[in-house]
Amino acid sequence: MSGRSSGIEAAPSPVETGTVDLPARVAPVELVEVGPRDGLQNENRPLPVGTRVELIGRLLDLGVRRLEAVSFVRPDRVPQMVGAEEVMAALPQRDDVTYVGLVLNRRGAVRAVETACDEINVVVPVTDAFAERNQGAPVAALLDEAAGAVEVARGAGRSVSVTLAVAFGCPFSGPVAPERVADVAEAALALGIDELALADTIGVGVPAQVRGLTALVQGDERLRRLRFHFHNTRNTGYANAAAAADLALDVPIALDASIGGFGGCPFAPAATGNIATEDLFYLLRESGVPTTGPADLDLGAAAEVSTWLSEQLDSPVTAQLGRAGDARVRA
Amino acid sequence: MSGRSSGIEAAPSPVETGTVDLPARVAPVELVEVGPRDGLQNENRPLPVGTRVELIGRLLDLGVRRLEAVSFVRPDRVPQMVGAEEVMAALPQRDDVTYVGLVLNRRGAVRAVETACDEINVVVPVTDAFAERNQGAPVAALLDEAAGAVEVARGAGRSVSVTLAVAFGCPFSGPVAPERVADVAEAALALGIDELALADTIGVGVPAQVRGLTALVQGDERLRRLRFHFHNTRNTGYANAAAAADLALDVPIALDASIGGFGGCPFAPAATGNIATEDLFYLLRESGVPTTGPADLDLGAAAEVSTWLSEQLDSPVTAQLGRAGDARVRA
Repeated sequence: MSGRSSGIEAAPSPVETGTVDLPARVAPVELVEVGPRDGLQNENRPLPVGTRVELIGRLLDLGVRRLEAVSFVRPDRVPQMVGAEEVMAALPQRDDVTYVGLVLNRRGAVRAVETACDEINVVVPVTDAFAERNQGAPVAALLDEAAGAVEVARGAGRSVSVTLAVAFGCPFSGPVAPERVADVAEAALALGIDELALADTIGVGVPAQVRGLTALVQGDERLRRLRFHFHNTRNTGYANAAAAADLALDVPIALDASIGGFGGCPFAPAATGNIATEDLFYLLRESGVPTTGPADLDLGAAAEVSTWLSEQLDSPVTAQLGRAGDARVRA
Repeated sequence: MSGRSSGIEAAPSPVETGTVDLPARVAPVELVEVGPRDGLQNENRPLPVGTRVELIGRLLDLGVRRLEAVSFVRPDRVPQMVGAEEVMAALPQRDDVTYVGLVLNRRGAVRAVETACDEINVVVPVTDAFAERNQGAPVAALLDEAAGAVEVARGAGRSVSVTLAVAFGCPFSGPVAPERVADVAEAALALGIDELALADTIGVGVPAQVRGLTALVQGDERLRRLRFHFHNTRNTGYANAAAAADLALDVPIALDASIGGFGGCPFAPAATGNIATEDLFYLLRESGVPTTGPADLDLGAAAEVSTWLSEQLDSPVTAQLGRAGDARVRA
């Protein structure tokens, strides 16, 4: 049998014609960089204001155009975010860049609008267990705070998003009923916001949830843009991002990611954190999904920023592209 | 505005009714454990036969029922796989377990059928560049070798699968044309095999490729079972696995995984390797996808095996479940 012809002849250049079927979606996915906020917030070593400003400058050089720059939270609770006002004051003012400031309540929004933040991102957990432990009040009270924050942001002419924390699972109360997420989402959308975000704060979610939760909120005519925030704590983050990018929606989709994959998880201290900007970009690019902010990303340059940040934080890069190298699977 | 009722009242137990929409697929996905072969082959430290036998015993205790136990390759090329015959001789003979032996050619199959291997897995690369460098002959010649190996396996009453290496991208020639994969797949199916596998040997693939390549082979009536082999080298492995589990096919689907995620990638030495059995199981379980071999997996016990293997190999666990902890997202 070894003398039989296989019917396969040596192809001189079999790789030159490689293509994959592109997904139905052609609308671009917006990438939102959260490294300067979520990426730093869960690392043990607080970075000085100057280093945080340098990080943001390096991200802008990579083509990042929307980024969570700071959070206006209590310095005694989150020392990594001390000096939000100083960071904002030091950033270049650019019409093509959206700086996002995270707040938990009306007081945070009042601080934020005193700075050059273009967008206020209000975090509202969907479970009372998390709300009480993390923010000292039940969900209903935090929605009232969110309403106040939205009012403050609108009054100052800033755009505003609401991020639903622990929408995929709660570290204190476990599984979360999708209907509960839908209820809090509806309350958030009723505030008149520019974007709703579903956050897998502790990295427990799976693609079926991405689709299931989206199905519950996508019919709301007040939904203008849907953003997702995934952590790779249990190695499901990129699968979730791929599922989100495949969604066929009438509204734009945005995905959070953190350069280098920094960020960790406060509820699983040894685990990895946010999905990494460079790895997410690779996944989307090779899948034929166009992106905005950046539309293209130099993966080598991104890996250099990650390595630099790793040195600043004394924490390992969890993104893999820097170690594995770029590779194009489509010709 | 802070006094306004949000319409969301405190829910006493919002988590108790949590469900996610189950995917359309109800057919189980078979898990194939490749830790004893691919997991060890790319680690620097060869393990003695006794330790490899112990590893397989521990995997059987976890519920693993189909596993790549050994490879019959040249000892001078792959010192980690020395002693395949001794490993096979030391394993418990069980009717409910399928031991797979990997071979590259007819000679390997001759060795394999002298042992208790239930199944012969023949690896055939789809690019000449990889075939020449890795196995010293072009694809056409290796398909002839595969034909010989299938003949030997059939003559000895063993089942046989063919794994198409570098089907998602080649470290030497780059992108691979899907038509090339389809051509080699057709030649492999013409040999009369029990299963075809598509392997992302270097971890460059994305979900769109999983669907695209599957579309090219699923119509072949000789296809009896489709298996996928993913590496997480660039953080796309679990997204690919999720895409494979979502495929709606007339034939059963199997997924390779390695306990602890050991295995590395010889073409990216610093990168992580196979997708991890425990993390894959978590992803599928939480997605509502039933599995076989194991139907259920004790994630704590699996993490213990990974930790033990990490000590034997002096190599870190890349699976995340052990660090992050199990969490159920469905009530």
